[in-house]
Amino acid sequence: MKKLSILGSTGSIGKSTLEVVSKHPDKFRVIGLAARNSIEDLEQQIKEFKPEVVAVSDETAAGELKKKGLPVEILTGEQGIVEVATLGNIDTVVSAVVGSPGLVPTYEAIKAGKDIALATKEALVMAGKIVMAEAASKGVSILPVDSEHSAVFQCLDGRDMNEVEKIILTASGGSFRDRSAAELANVTLAEALNHPNWDMGRKITIDSATLMNKGLEVIEAYWLFNVPLEKIDVVIHPQSIIHSMVSFIDGSVIAQMSVPDMQGPISYALSYPERFGDILPSLDFAKIKELTFNEPDIEKYPAIKLTYDALEAGGTMPCVLNAANETAVDAFLNERISYTDIANIVSETMNRHSIVPGDTIEEVIGVSDWAKGQAEDIIKERV
Amino acid sequence: MKKLSILGSTGSIGKSTLEVVSKHPDKFRVIGLAARNSIEDLEQQIKEFKPEVVAVSDETAAGELKKKGLPVEILTGEQGIVEVATLGNIDTVVSAVVGSPGLVPTYEAIKAGKDIALATKEALVMAGKIVMAEAASKGVSILPVDSEHSAVFQCLDGRDMNEVEKIILTASGGSFRDRSAAELANVTLAEALNHPNWDMGRKITIDSATLMNKGLEVIEAYWLFNVPLEKIDVVIHPQSIIHSMVSFIDGSVIAQMSVPDMQGPISYALSYPERFGDILPSLDFAKIKELTFNEPDIEKYPAIKLTYDALEAGGTMPCVLNAANETAVDAFLNERISYTDIANIVSETMNRHSIVPGDTIEEVIGVSDWAKGQAEDIIKERV
Repeated sequence: MKKLSILGSTGSIGKSTLEVVSKHPDKFRVIGLAARNSIEDLEQQIKEFKPEVVAVSDETAAGELKKKGLPVEILTGEQGIVEVATLGNIDTVVSAVVGSPGLVPTYEAIKAGKDIALATKEALVMAGKIVMAEAASKGVSILPVDSEHSAVFQCLDGRDMNEVEKIILTASGGSFRDRSAAELANVTLAEALNHPNWDMGRKITIDSATLMNKGLEVIEAYWLFNVPLEKIDVVIHPQSIIHSMVSFIDGSVIAQMSVPDMQGPISYALSYPERFGDILPSLDFAKIKELTFNEPDIEKYPAIKLTYDALEAGGTMPCVLNAANETAVDAFLNERISYTDIANIVSETMNRHSIVPGDTIEEVIGVSDWAKGQAEDIIKERV
Repeated sequence: MKKLSILGSTGSIGKSTLEVVSKHPDKFRVIGLAARNSIEDLEQQIKEFKPEVVAVSDETAAGELKKKGLPVEILTGEQGIVEVATLGNIDTVVSAVVGSPGLVPTYEAIKAGKDIALATKEALVMAGKIVMAEAASKGVSILPVDSEHSAVFQCLDGRDMNEVEKIILTASGGSFRDRSAAELANVTLAEALNHPNWDMGRKITIDSATLMNKGLEVIEAYWLFNVPLEKIDVVIHPQSIIHSMVSFIDGSVIAQMSVPDMQGPISYALSYPERFGDILPSLDFAKIKELTFNEPDIEKYPAIKLTYDALEAGGTMPCVLNAANETAVDAFLNERISYTDIANIVSETMNRHSIVPGDTIEEVIGVSDWAKGQAEDIIKERV
């Protein structure tokens, strides 16, 4: 039986994780849960899954939860989340906090020797070198929960990376895949939030539309699978049935598919090296009828080029890309900027950055905070 | 270095095998070659690959080859092929003799403890139970060379069969995939031999058009992967890019793809568990653009139903199906019968058969010969 802490339990991935857990109560025991402030959802989860400890990072929300007198220890603040991530009696941490706040608890969990089911790609985007080195030194497994990286992980299935010619990440093309670059200037927030295939959180839905999400995944794949950048390709695949592929040196390509539902990759990260049943319905290819592919249009999706540029520049540049994007997407979600401003703000923030190696988590977080401040300044200059 | 005998070296698979060998001269040494009667091709192969022993089953052709004074031992007859299959200093036999004559040398190679790269699906269609039991008892590996079974083998990659929900064999739909069942009555031999995707031998090209080839592959998969019949599906996939798939209990599907070229599966069977480079060009998905699927039309492809019926009936019925089909296809290739007669002759031969267990190779061959005689009688009755 695997003993879990779930960071971000009230988010989209957290909820799907608990659905997987509830399908296999003999395989999993939830020990810790952590959320930001959604205490109604958290209360329901406490009642159903009976964790020993929960953390609520928002102090006010934590205070309200405490008043309910639930039979659980309640921790608060960022430190509370770290404590849930490092509990002595857990073996696996599901890291599904949205965005840069996920880095520190994920890193602390690795330092404490916990295996990680990683949804928070920012941990690798911001601090891939540090995180992977720590995981290697502690001998912990980092199992991908992103559908693309789970697909790659399933396609690789332990093969020698010398046999890999390319990792091919698929991208749905997001909410605006059927619009031209020119049409993007006037799109609305509501349109951007209407993802054709996946039901996800707001931030990642916007990142899917801009393809920044795919860019961050390229960076994540770079660290997770230790492949050079030129061995990572992106192809648009509107149906989101093939979640990614690996092309080998003999010309054989292995692809992983399923209906688009995050329970698939979550389950695999938790059941690995086994597979558990009753997770997703089977694919029916006679009903699917067709799978299509096309090259990403760089003019329409400037985020792709920005991420390759950031990774090539190295050091703290990917961290700056991510931080500026978080600030810009937040501004777009609050209707302070237009959709096409997002990439421009990221690009301008990157231009202002002087790269440093980023050898400590503190340095990386400092750079991330600096970039968010710069992005905010740029937003203010514009409006 | 792997030491090989190649049975059927002058056929399509044999030639592709030698192309793979010539790409990796440090990995392979060709010790034995066997062919039926194509001594010109064989002479060229002897000069290039310098085998120690060759066998020519046709006595006249063997006599002609001997006159050439080549520096190689030349054996003759069916027994000569068995000797090449069981040479003391080889470890792997590429079994690529077309049709039922491939059974005995393949079986003798297994008895002699040789690993088998198996293209001759008839060995399993005719005598799957006997062949697999012998392989298990001798601890030899039977590595599939059929593109579909190689795909399944690559997708399974050693996984527990309890995790498998379905094996999904893809079929191109063959030469007549764009014609209706009604249009098949008047098709010509030349049209039938014009396969849209694969460049293969004549017999298998006709079997691809009728989907009998897929039926035989269902039977082959049944024995090779030890899965019940209801876990094997067939889907039409006209592009022949996905060579087959495995659907797992968690809803995840793993697919194997490549350009349609038999060097892919041949190389994997010979390099397994490694992959060797420089075999096939990479797939370019932006150029492929689409992969499509549809359900096989049972009216158009009666062979599919016949094979499921034969496997359900069990015992020697799959052997009868195969033998009758060989005779019928041969008659079609000689323009003695029409295209749609093929399935009718197979069906009628099956109707005449009283199933026996088929527990020995001799019994199986006896039944196969009986079925060929019956099919020939039926052909004669018709013309």
